[in-house]
Amino acid sequence: MKPLILITNDDGYAARGIQALTEVAREFGEVVVMAPAQNASAKSLSLTTKVPIRVRDIRQEEGLSSYACDGTPVDCLKLAVEHFCPRRPDLVLSGINHGSNSSINILYSGTMGAVLEATTLGFPAIGFSLLHHSPDADFEPSQPIVRHLVSHVLDHGLPPDVALNVNIPRLASADIKGIRLCRQSKAQWRDSFEKRIDPLGRPYWWLTGKFVCDNPTTDSDEWALAHGYVSVVPIHTDYTDFPALESLQSIQQF
Amino acid sequence: MKPLILITNDDGYAARGIQALTEVAREFGEVVVMAPAQNASAKSLSLTTKVPIRVRDIRQEEGLSSYACDGTPVDCLKLAVEHFCPRRPDLVLSGINHGSNSSINILYSGTMGAVLEATTLGFPAIGFSLLHHSPDADFEPSQPIVRHLVSHVLDHGLPPDVALNVNIPRLASADIKGIRLCRQSKAQWRDSFEKRIDPLGRPYWWLTGKFVCDNPTTDSDEWALAHGYVSVVPIHTDYTDFPALESLQSIQQF
Repeated sequence: MKPLILITNDDGYAARGIQALTEVAREFGEVVVMAPAQNASAKSLSLTTKVPIRVRDIRQEEGLSSYACDGTPVDCLKLAVEHFCPRRPDLVLSGINHGSNSSINILYSGTMGAVLEATTLGFPAIGFSLLHHSPDADFEPSQPIVRHLVSHVLDHGLPPDVALNVNIPRLASADIKGIRLCRQSKAQWRDSFEKRIDPLGRPYWWLTGKFVCDNPTTDSDEWALAHGYVSVVPIHTDYTDFPALESLQSIQQF
Repeated sequence: MKPLILITNDDGYAARGIQALTEVAREFGEVVVMAPAQNASAKSLSLTTKVPIRVRDIRQEEGLSSYACDGTPVDCLKLAVEHFCPRRPDLVLSGINHGSNSSINILYSGTMGAVLEATTLGFPAIGFSLLHHSPDADFEPSQPIVRHLVSHVLDHGLPPDVALNVNIPRLASADIKGIRLCRQSKAQWRDSFEKRIDPLGRPYWWLTGKFVCDNPTTDSDEWALAHGYVSVVPIHTDYTDFPALESLQSIQQF
């Protein structure tokens, strides 16, 4: 039986990035797409708890079932696995995101939220992002990279409870230097809110901010991307800081 | 100068849990509260990107400034640090959450999303949750635990980039066995969506689901809570799976 590949994203079902990803996935197996009906960027792993969710049928053809759902990326994934997949998926893909999810951007990303969720559910999963925010971004140079990584993961699997966060530099195929396994860079978002005054004189705040990653180490994703490589960060959902289990022993004396 | 403590949560500024937390925090220093105006549970680290944010002044008195904001817990934290704190906070607290954020619940929690955000901004941070969902939950037995942990962290600090995920069993003070440093348990949410039919015959889905943690190990938070202990999991925001950096080397051959 052909592999079953479940796909979602956070830019919405109609985005170019998810279309480019779906094209490649169909070369490998049967595909179910369940993606947000609207843009759901920066939704992290949020869940829709207060309202019911509707699902719209987008496209049904040989080897492809596509749906749009008004939930978050994590809602999409849970719902698809339980109610819209003909069997357990062999692989979960998310993206291709319009814009970077490297470094700490993984914390906020809906695209990567779905990947982390897939990991909790026991599925191998890969999140793809292109370092180009535009809705018209060209995803063609990303497709050979997606093809290589999907093929590798279908053939070899991933370690248990590990997923991949893949970021692709905005370069022509010929200029991409290769694929580098990396660690997540340490970074920070600064100056996140701008104060403005509305026409009635009342203050409001708009989200803004700049990403700051000083001196990324050569083993990190920011370094790889800045040097023309595709970054692949193996990630997991266990947030425990194990060294601190030793150093904080005295906190137990209550 | 007294320490400055910044407080948020995801149950909203009016919840009993944040009031109990604020009471204890005020024993230690000056407090700024910036919390969601409405319940923002299960918002994870989501950001408000499409609409501006308003802030409402709730209370100003000696040693306490309290605000409600219509953003997510992460929005609250960023906004408070940049525009509402008189100086850099010495400590960030979140909660006390009405309901557990142990194990993988940390992935979805807005309360813990704010704690992870605080870590990216370089602040020591503690998230507190009581294993009792009710809006009327009794937080009095939680207060001595909060007092102990806040005091310990103000006195000794935390390792760089490490925060604490504290869960408190629903027990009378006398029945709490102690505080245990733990690792995050592996678990899963199952059967997450229920299909229903609306009065016009159209399907919709409601979020539901049950938390499943089979045979938690004795070093884990679920084990500690099930045995009457407060669980303290040191956490970080680096999702890299370091063992996989070795085992996945061949994926770079592109």
